[in-house]
Amino acid sequence: MTHRIAVIPGDGIGKEVMPEGLRALEAAASRFGIALELAHFDFASCDYYAEHGKMLPDDWFETLKDFDAILYGAVGWPATVPDHVSLWGSLLQFRRRFDQYINLRPCRLLPGIKSPLADRKPGDIDFYVVRENTEGEYSSVGGKMFEGTEREVVIQETVMTRHGTDRVLKFAYELAASRPRKKLTSATKSNGIAITMPWWDERVAEMGKRYPDVTVDQFHIDILTANFVMHPDWFDVVVASNLFGDILSDLGPACTGTIGVAPSANINPEGTFPSLFEPVHGSAPDIAGKGIANPIGQIWSGAMMLEHLGHKEASDAIVSAFEAVLAEGDRSVLTPDVGGSGTTESLGRAIAARL
Amino acid sequence: MTHRIAVIPGDGIGKEVMPEGLRALEAAASRFGIALELAHFDFASCDYYAEHGKMLPDDWFETLKDFDAILYGAVGWPATVPDHVSLWGSLLQFRRRFDQYINLRPCRLLPGIKSPLADRKPGDIDFYVVRENTEGEYSSVGGKMFEGTEREVVIQETVMTRHGTDRVLKFAYELAASRPRKKLTSATKSNGIAITMPWWDERVAEMGKRYPDVTVDQFHIDILTANFVMHPDWFDVVVASNLFGDILSDLGPACTGTIGVAPSANINPEGTFPSLFEPVHGSAPDIAGKGIANPIGQIWSGAMMLEHLGHKEASDAIVSAFEAVLAEGDRSVLTPDVGGSGTTESLGRAIAARL
Ligand SMILES: CC(C)[C@H](C(=O)O)[C@@H](O)C(=O)O
Ligand SMILES: CC(C)[C@H](C(=O)O)[C@@H](O)C(=O)O
Repeated sequence: MTHRIAVIPGDGIGKEVMPEGLRALEAAASRFGIALELAHFDFASCDYYAEHGKMLPDDWFETLKDFDAILYGAVGWPATVPDHVSLWGSLLQFRRRFDQYINLRPCRLLPGIKSPLADRKPGDIDFYVVRENTEGEYSSVGGKMFEGTEREVVIQETVMTRHGTDRVLKFAYELAASRPRKKLTSATKSNGIAITMPWWDERVAEMGKRYPDVTVDQFHIDILTANFVMHPDWFDVVVASNLFGDILSDLGPACTGTIGVAPSANINPEGTFPSLFEPVHGSAPDIAGKGIANPIGQIWSGAMMLEHLGHKEASDAIVSAFEAVLAEGDRSVLTPDVGGSGTTESLGRAIAARL
Repeated sequence: MTHRIAVIPGDGIGKEVMPEGLRALEAAASRFGIALELAHFDFASCDYYAEHGKMLPDDWFETLKDFDAILYGAVGWPATVPDHVSLWGSLLQFRRRFDQYINLRPCRLLPGIKSPLADRKPGDIDFYVVRENTEGEYSSVGGKMFEGTEREVVIQETVMTRHGTDRVLKFAYELAASRPRKKLTSATKSNGIAITMPWWDERVAEMGKRYPDVTVDQFHIDILTANFVMHPDWFDVVVASNLFGDILSDLGPACTGTIGVAPSANINPEGTFPSLFEPVHGSAPDIAGKGIANPIGQIWSGAMMLEHLGHKEASDAIVSAFEAVLAEGDRSVLTPDVGGSGTTESLGRAIAARL
C-alpha cells in the first residue's frame, strides 16, 4: 500500500527545510519498507499569490482531497502579502475544508537544547497541547459600524458549537486515557468571558463522565500560561479552544526551548480528508535565504505524519535519530539556533545518515 | 488635603493581606505627611453574596464614586459562588462603571525572589503591561441557539471601539515616551482573528504618528507569550486588548517569579471616577485562613495607589522597603512562598518597620 503525500514547501524557510524533511522521511521509508509517493505543489505560498493574485488555485480542494496526508513547510511573507490574507487564503482553508479539527503539538525537553527555564532536564516536561482547530475565536463573522469615524465600533464573533467542541474534547480525553498519567487540563476563562467559556466548562465536565479514569483540572488561561512557566511538570494533556490552544502551543515549546524545532499536526481523525503536518516555526523572513534554518521541526512533522499513517516504529526512529544528533552536539553539524555553525543541510544530512 | 480611600478586603486571602497593606500605607503616610481617610466596606465579596444574594448593594455606585481611590484585596470563592458571578458582580462592574480603562501591571525581577527563568538577575527584566480594561473580548453580548441539543451553537462577541482603543493606546504611548527606552510592543493576532485585530494594528500605527520618538513593534499573541519566556529583556511597555492583556499580565509576573506579589492598578486617568488598586493574586482558597499569604502584592498595590495620588516619593519608599526586606532574606520573617517560615503579619510588620 502506497501513501500519497502532497508536499507544499510554502514560503521563506519553508522552502529550505522541506528538502531535509523529505530526506529524513525517505530514509525512514526505505529502512522500514514504507511506500511513499510524493507530489509537489507550489501553491499556498506568497510567491504563488504574486503570480496569480490568490493563494490557491480554484481547484485546490479537488486536487488535494484524495491525498493521504499533506506535508507543509510554512506560509507567510508579510512584506508582500498581509498575514491575514496569506493565512486565511491557505492554511486556515485547509484546516476548515479538510475538517482538520485537531491541532496537536508535543511539548518536550530534548537533549542538547537549552530550555529558558531554570533547573529543568529532559524527562521533566512532556505534554501535549490539543487545540480546537476549526472554529471558536477564529471566525470571519463580524464587522464594523460608523467606520472611519470617532464612533467606530468593531465586532468579531466567537462561534463555538457542541459538535465542534465535543469532538476535540473526546480526542483529548482519549489521548489522556492512553497515557500513563491519564491527566487532562482544560484551558478556560469562564470568570471573564461570560458566555462561551462557562459553556465550554460544562462540555468538559459532561464529556468527562465517559472517562472516569482520567483526572481533569482546569485553569483560566491567564494563570495557565503562568503555570506553563512555573510548573510545566504539572501537565500531561492540555485541551483548549482555537485561540487559547494557539497561545499554549507556542508557549509550551518556548518553555522547552524547542519552538524552533517543534512540529504540529492538523488532524482529521476520521481520515475523511487528508491531515496536514507542519513545523511550528513560521516562514521566518529574518533568516530566510541564509540556509541556516533548523530543519528538525520539518523532520519531526514528517515523523508525526508517519505515526498518523500507522507507522509508529518509523516515526519513533526519526525522533530517535534527531535526538541522537542533538545529544551528540557536533557543532559543525548543528545549526546556529542550537549553538552550531552548520547549515540546514548539514543537520538534515546528519539526521538522515542516522536512519 | 485628605485622600479618601475605600478599603474593600473581599474574599479569602484578601482579608488577610489587607491589614498588612494598610499597615505599610499608614507608615508611609505618616512618614511623608500624607493625610488618608479610610472607609471600610464588606461588600464585593462572596460572604456578602451569601447574606444578600448579590455582590454589591444597590447604591454601590453612589457610595463609592466620590472616593479618591479604592484599595481592593481579592474577590472570588468558587466553592459558594461561581467565578463569573462573583467577578461580573463586583470587580468587572467597578472597572466598567468607574471607567477604569487602564489596567497597569509592572513586571520586574526583585531581589530575593527566584525567577523560574534561567540566568536572569534583577535589572534584566523591567517592563509594564498596559491592558485595555473595559471592553473587547470581555463582553456580555452573545447567546446560545439550539440550546441543550446536538446542534447547539454558542456565540460571544468581542466589541472594540475606536474610543476605547485609542485611549488605551494613548496611555501606553505616553508611558513608553516617559521611559528611557521609549519602546512600545503591541500584542495582536491579526493573522488569525480577522476583523478586530487587523483594525487594532491600524489604530496602533495611527496613534504612533503622534509619538515619533517611540519605537513600536508588534507580535502575534502566541509568539509574544513565547518571547516573554525567551526574551523578557526585549520589552519596555506592552499594550494589549482586554484578554491578551489579562494573559500577558499574569505571564509577565510569572516569568519574574513575582506572580504572588505583583500589584495591579485599574486606572481612570482623568480622575472622573476613583481608580482601583489590587494585588494580582486572587483570593487563593487553597491557602486562605492559614495566615501565610504574602502581603507584598497588597502593599505594592498601595504604593501604586500613592503614586497615582501624586505621592511618588512615598510610593518609592514603600517599594524600597519591601525590596530591602526581601534582599535581607530573614527566613523567620518571610512567608513560605519566598522560602521563609514567617507569616503574613511578620512580613507585613517587617516592611512597615522599614518605613
Ligand atoms: C478575575 C478575572 C475576571 C480578572 C480578569 O480576567 O480580568 C483577573 O484575572 C484579572 O486579571 O484581574
Ligand atoms: C499563522 C497563524 C494563523 C496560525 C494560527 O494562529 O493558527 C499559527 O500561529 C499556528 O498556530 O499554526
